[in-house]
This record gives sequence, structure tokens and C-alpha cells, in this order.
Amino acid sequence: MIPLSSRVARRHPARSGGLRGHNLGLALRCVAASSGTISRAGISASTGLNRSTASSLVDELICGGLVRELEGRVPSGVGRPPTALALSETGPAGLGLDVSVDYVSACVVDLTGTIRHRHVVAQDQRGHDSPELLGSVASVAGDALAAIAADGLTLSGTAVAVPGLVNRESGRVILAPNLGWCDLDLVEVLRGVDVLRGHAFGENITLDNEANFAALSEEELLRADQSYLYVNGQVGVGAGLVLGGELYRGRHGWSGEVGHQSIDRDGPRCGCGQRGCLEQYAGHEAILSGAGMSATPGAGVPGARPAVDLILQWADGGDQRTIDALARAGAALGVVLAGCLNLLDLDRVVLGGIYRELASWIIPEIEREVTGRFVGARWAQPVIDTATYAAEAPALGAARSVVQGIIDDPLRWLSR
Amino acid sequence: MIPLSSRVARRHPARSGGLRGHNLGLALRCVAASSGTISRAGISASTGLNRSTASSLVDELICGGLVRELEGRVPSGVGRPPTALALSETGPAGLGLDVSVDYVSACVVDLTGTIRHRHVVAQDQRGHDSPELLGSVASVAGDALAAIAADGLTLSGTAVAVPGLVNRESGRVILAPNLGWCDLDLVEVLRGVDVLRGHAFGENITLDNEANFAALSEEELLRADQSYLYVNGQVGVGAGLVLGGELYRGRHGWSGEVGHQSIDRDGPRCGCGQRGCLEQYAGHEAILSGAGMSATPGAGVPGARPAVDLILQWADGGDQRTIDALARAGAALGVVLAGCLNLLDLDRVVLGGIYRELASWIIPEIEREVTGRFVGARWAQPVIDTATYAAEAPALGAARSVVQGIIDDPLRWLSR
Repeated sequence: MIPLSSRVARRHPARSGGLRGHNLGLALRCVAASSGTISRAGISASTGLNRSTASSLVDELICGGLVRELEGRVPSGVGRPPTALALSETGPAGLGLDVSVDYVSACVVDLTGTIRHRHVVAQDQRGHDSPELLGSVASVAGDALAAIAADGLTLSGTAVAVPGLVNRESGRVILAPNLGWCDLDLVEVLRGVDVLRGHAFGENITLDNEANFAALSEEELLRADQSYLYVNGQVGVGAGLVLGGELYRGRHGWSGEVGHQSIDRDGPRCGCGQRGCLEQYAGHEAILSGAGMSATPGAGVPGARPAVDLILQWADGGDQRTIDALARAGAALGVVLAGCLNLLDLDRVVLGGIYRELASWIIPEIEREVTGRFVGARWAQPVIDTATYAAEAPALGAARSVVQGIIDDPLRWLSR
Repeated sequence: MIPLSSRVARRHPARSGGLRGHNLGLALRCVAASSGTISRAGISASTGLNRSTASSLVDELICGGLVRELEGRVPSGVGRPPTALALSETGPAGLGLDVSVDYVSACVVDLTGTIRHRHVVAQDQRGHDSPELLGSVASVAGDALAAIAADGLTLSGTAVAVPGLVNRESGRVILAPNLGWCDLDLVEVLRGVDVLRGHAFGENITLDNEANFAALSEEELLRADQSYLYVNGQVGVGAGLVLGGELYRGRHGWSGEVGHQSIDRDGPRCGCGQRGCLEQYAGHEAILSGAGMSATPGAGVPGARPAVDLILQWADGGDQRTIDALARAGAALGVVLAGCLNLLDLDRVVLGGIYRELASWIIPEIEREVTGRFVGARWAQPVIDTATYAAEAPALGAARSVVQGIIDDPLRWLSR
């Protein structure tokens, strides 16, 4: 048995390309894990590959634009210090798009995960498929592609975040209730976008739920193999569940649908047909409506960003209806999160989307409910934290998932 | 890289004893996975270990009483067919004890997981620690130890199922509200049981939540790497969550506390201090009380088994209060399970404990709520199934966890 780092072995079973593909992936993940501080000899030592194999794999990764040699050298005991290796910042780029209820956003990252471009365009997407959808997507995607070209990067794929259930295999949106989409072939629609023709974009498009992608934007927690629930507040409320540093998608990829947890079986009617769903208390339109603004979906209700600004303005100004609506939202979130914590015994909840901005108004209520309802709270109070990124989180997580795909399976990129 | 079966490699990272311990485990797991149909050469082929190494590892496992040679031989192409290997049925035994609210039970399994002995004694344990607890535990454990000796087995360890939060490292029960236990050193108490002195029992005792162990009694689902939530109905309601064939315990081992999910924030007061917890609708005393029997905890209320008989007798006889109480329990379970399914997107729920017997009365209500509330239900209706085992499930799962520990790390057993 050749000793592998057990974490590398566990998380990355052999992929395409047999032994060579497996070993290229192993070498690239070593570089990714210790970028800038590892040499060819270091890769040999930590993988168990012999030195000439490790060296030729590294050469292949350099040739393919995935790894670069640094000027600095890795200190070593004797002789000439070996050359340090790092992930390339001029190779492949991942494009993330987020088609949300009231905005479209794009984010570009390079192989190191660094953000190279981001852009959010507010526009109500409800009921749109094509050509209205194509217009806003073409606008943000066109800017992103121009930024990729200007930076000398190569587009390696596109991941699209959708607020609903998707079928990742077929590229179809099964149901995005707040968008009014049902069984929409979104990948086909996106392939019809003029500005994107002739780009690799059209060949490699993946979909996922926006909260799942948003959860992947918390790079520091992922890297530390943390477990957390990322709650993404928009018109709807979704969550991305990460267990031990890995996104948990469930059987069909539909995990994290906390927006339809029941708070009160006799509560207000929800779009899903049931009563008293979390979204009816803690979605952004529910908070607005509780604060006194009549919220008819799609009829001039402000999008999430301006809505949050309004809500904060009213609450900070002491408007009691707004303050009560926020307390109600926080308590409803707290009841549902306590349920999630009782089921999963997690250390941490991350509040993203509108909850990131509203945190100071809702966290006290969330913590009160969690303290009262999570049976383990007396011995281990979970952390209720805010997300690192605001509205760009889903697009950023989507873009990172594209480059992570290359790190997991570099041969697919190298043999493209 | 030596090709390993990725499942074996993923589930069983190297343990104690370095290379030898690792390879012994690898060989033993091959025998466990193909018991009766694998030879020394087969182990060599599926692990990548060379034939003489595989053969000497097998000899060591046979010597240690973990593996035996079968009379039959594995068919092969040419020459004398090689000897088939199987797990030993005369080596180590695992003892599982279940200290529940109203009964104590014991179960003994051999290394193959076959049940060799089981016994349930009805007795209300509320408020007992020692010496009352010791009396009933001594009785069932004494019988189990006698059965182990009579079968020529060797006790390898004891696992104890508890209806509450435990600290597996320290062997303490943190909180078992329905037993009235708080911060109880149960391992220490059990070590005081006379009949158990001088047995390996005293040296190797592990604790876990009873629903966690009950979930491990579903061997067929585990072996098929299934994901499911096992709901164990007793006085309280707990669940064991299995993801991809592995018990998911959470950060502190407190996962699955579904009994305190809120159905109605204005509902009846629960022992946990909150209102409207699932237990207040679907625990066995709640159902009894709904059916018209006054239920003061510990004051002559029948235990789970006689309670279920009474409830079934009344419901089958057409008693409307009982039928309504069962419908209420089913609906409450359905709301909570829909929430769990929305969060985790599971294929399957297993109903254990009292719900196994009450299944025909509660499943229709559960399915109605799940169909209405699980957002994926329209495309993938999850299976709501009954448990394979009745009240013995937690003790059985506990006993199996003991022998699984040997299969995962045989060197600990061999070098005892």
C-alpha cells in the first residue's frame, strides 16, 4: 500500500483517464493544497509517486496551463533549493451565472479561486424564459466573457445558479416556483444566447440550486472541512448544506428546501399550496408586506437589494411594523433552524442573501429560538454567523465549482 | 497506485497498527463482503496485496478466530479449486443493551451479525440510576453472558443504547429527559454490576443514542449504501440518520432529535420547556392520552408494548378518540418528516419502535403530509416503510456496532 493523505484519497476517488488521470489529479491537488510552498520533490513525498513520475506530471500540468513555477524556491536542507509550484492565474477561468428572481449576476474566477470579475444586474425574471431572459443573461455574460478575454484567461465552463429544483444530469429546471418556471430546458435556452456562441460555454454548462452554490462561496469553511447550513434569503428561502467540507445534495440534488418548512399549519397560504411555510414569514416580500408595503409578486415590488435598503431604513427609523416583521422573520427562522440543528447537530449556520444585511435585526430572535429549542444548546451553542459575500455568493460559488471540477479531474481539461 | 475497491478505501481509512493492521482490516472486510465465496487468491485479486501476503494475513485471521475455512471450495478455471473463506461464527460476540424508558433489552450477535440471543424485560426505568437500574440490567445482561458462554463465543465488547444525548468519549449520559437522567456516568454504573465483573464487558463499553443504534439494525439498507431516516417511536421520538450507508452522528453525536421539532408554537407544553414538540402528538403517552387514558409519566401508564396493544385494540374496535389520536400523531409525524425530507432529500423513511406496529393507522396521514409538503414529492415520492425489527432494534444495532468495530479494526481484537 502506498500511503496517501487520507483526506485526498477520501475526497477524490479516481476519475477519468485511468492511472494517468488519477495521478495528474493527485499532483494538481497537492499544488492546490500547498500553493506556492511545494516542489516536485514535495509532491513525490506526499503522494508516494516516484520522483521522475511526479516531475513529468508537473511538466504536463505546466504545459496545460494549470500550474506555474514561481520565482521563489522552497527551502530545503542541502544543495540548490527546488522550484516552488503554484496554481496558474492565467489558465482556465470558471464563469458563474445566477438567474435569481429579481437579478442576474455573473462572476469569473481563475484556477486559484480568485475573483477576476463580478457584475449584478437588477431585473425581475418572473415568468421570463426566452427571449426576455436571454436579454439580461446576454448582458452580464457578455461582460464576463470580455473580462475573461481581456485577462488572457480561457473559459473552461459555466455553472448557473437557479432558485429551484434542477436536474443536473439533463440540465433542466424542474421547478422554480418564484420564477414561474416548470420543466424548462435552461441549458438549451442559454445556448441560444448570441453573444455566447462559439465559446466553450455552450459545451460545458452545469446547473444547481442557488443556495447550494452560495454555500460553496464560503471557501474558508470548506477548506477547514466544516459542517454548516448556509441559509440564502431572497424572495424564497433556500439552504445549502455542507457536511465535513462537502456539499450534501441529497438523492436528487434537492436538499436544503427549508423555505417550505411549516411554522404554523394554519398560517398564511404559500405558493407551494401549503400553509405557514417559512417563506411566508421570512422571505423578503413577506417582510416587506409585514412592514406595511403591499406585495403583489412582480407588480412593482422592489427587488431584494432595494427592499433590504427600505427595510433597514424603516427599522433604523424606529418603524414598529417593520421591527415587528423582522422579529417575526427572525423567530420563524429560529424555529426552522432549531429543527435543522436538532436533526443534524451542526456547529454553524451561515446567514446569506438578505439575511446578511438584516443580521443585526434577526440574529437575536434566531438565537432565542435556537437556545430554547435545540436540545444540545445548553452544552454547545451553535454559531449563527453572516455570510462572507452578499448577492454575488451564488454566482461566485458557481464559478468556483467550475474550476474545482478541473482540479478534481485535470485530464478532462488537458485533453479538451 | 494499487487499485483498491473505492468503497472499501473510502469507508475504511487506515486504523491502528500501521501497515499490518491496515492490511488485516482490508483482508477481513473482503471476507465479510463476500463471505463464503472468496478465497485467499480472491483477496489478493481484489486488494492488490500479493498472494503470499494475502495468504499469511488470512492465516492470522483464522488463528485469531475471526475467519474460518469452509468445506466447499470456490470454483476456478484450472487445477484444484481454492478453499472458500467465511467470517467465524464461533469467535467474538457483541453484546447490545438497550436501557429504554420502560424496558431493558439485550441482544447478542456473532461476527457474521447473526442474532444468537435476545431478551426484553419490561420495567419502568424513570428516575432510576443505581441500584434499581443495576437490578434489571444485571438480569438481562446475565442471561446474555450465559448465552455467549453456552455458544462458545467470546464477548468482545458491549454497546449500550440510551434514549437521550450521550458523550461517547466520556461514556456519560448528558441528558435523557424521559428517564430523568442528567450527567450520569452510565459506564461507571454498569461496571458496578456484579454479574459482569471479570468480563471484557467492563473494559469495552460504548454508548450511543437508541435511535442511532436502531438505525444500524437495518442491515440490508446499510449494505446497499442507502440513505434513510429511522424514526424510533417510544415515550419520546428519536431518529437515526444514515447517509450513504453510514450513520451520521453530527458534531457531538446528537443528530436525529426530531422529537422536539415544533409542530405548533402554541401547542401543548413539552418536558423540554417548549410548546408543540412532535413528542406531544406522536409519543406513545401522547397517543394514549389523546385516546382518553390519563397519562401521568411513571404513574402506572403502560409501557410501549402494552400501550401499543391497547391502542390497536381500541382503534380496531372503532373507538373514535383513539382513531383521531392516531391520525393526529400521523399528521404531526408527516409535517416533521416532510421537513426532514425537504432538508435532506432522502429516498426513504423507516418507522420503528411503536410506529412499526401502528403503521397501518399512521402511514396514510404521514404520506398525505409528505405529499403536500415535500417539494420533490411530485417527481419522487419517498418510501415510508416499517422497520425490520421491533423493540429489539436498538439492542441489535448496538450489538452489531460492536462486531463491526472488529471488522473495521481486527488488530485490536487480535492483539487483546
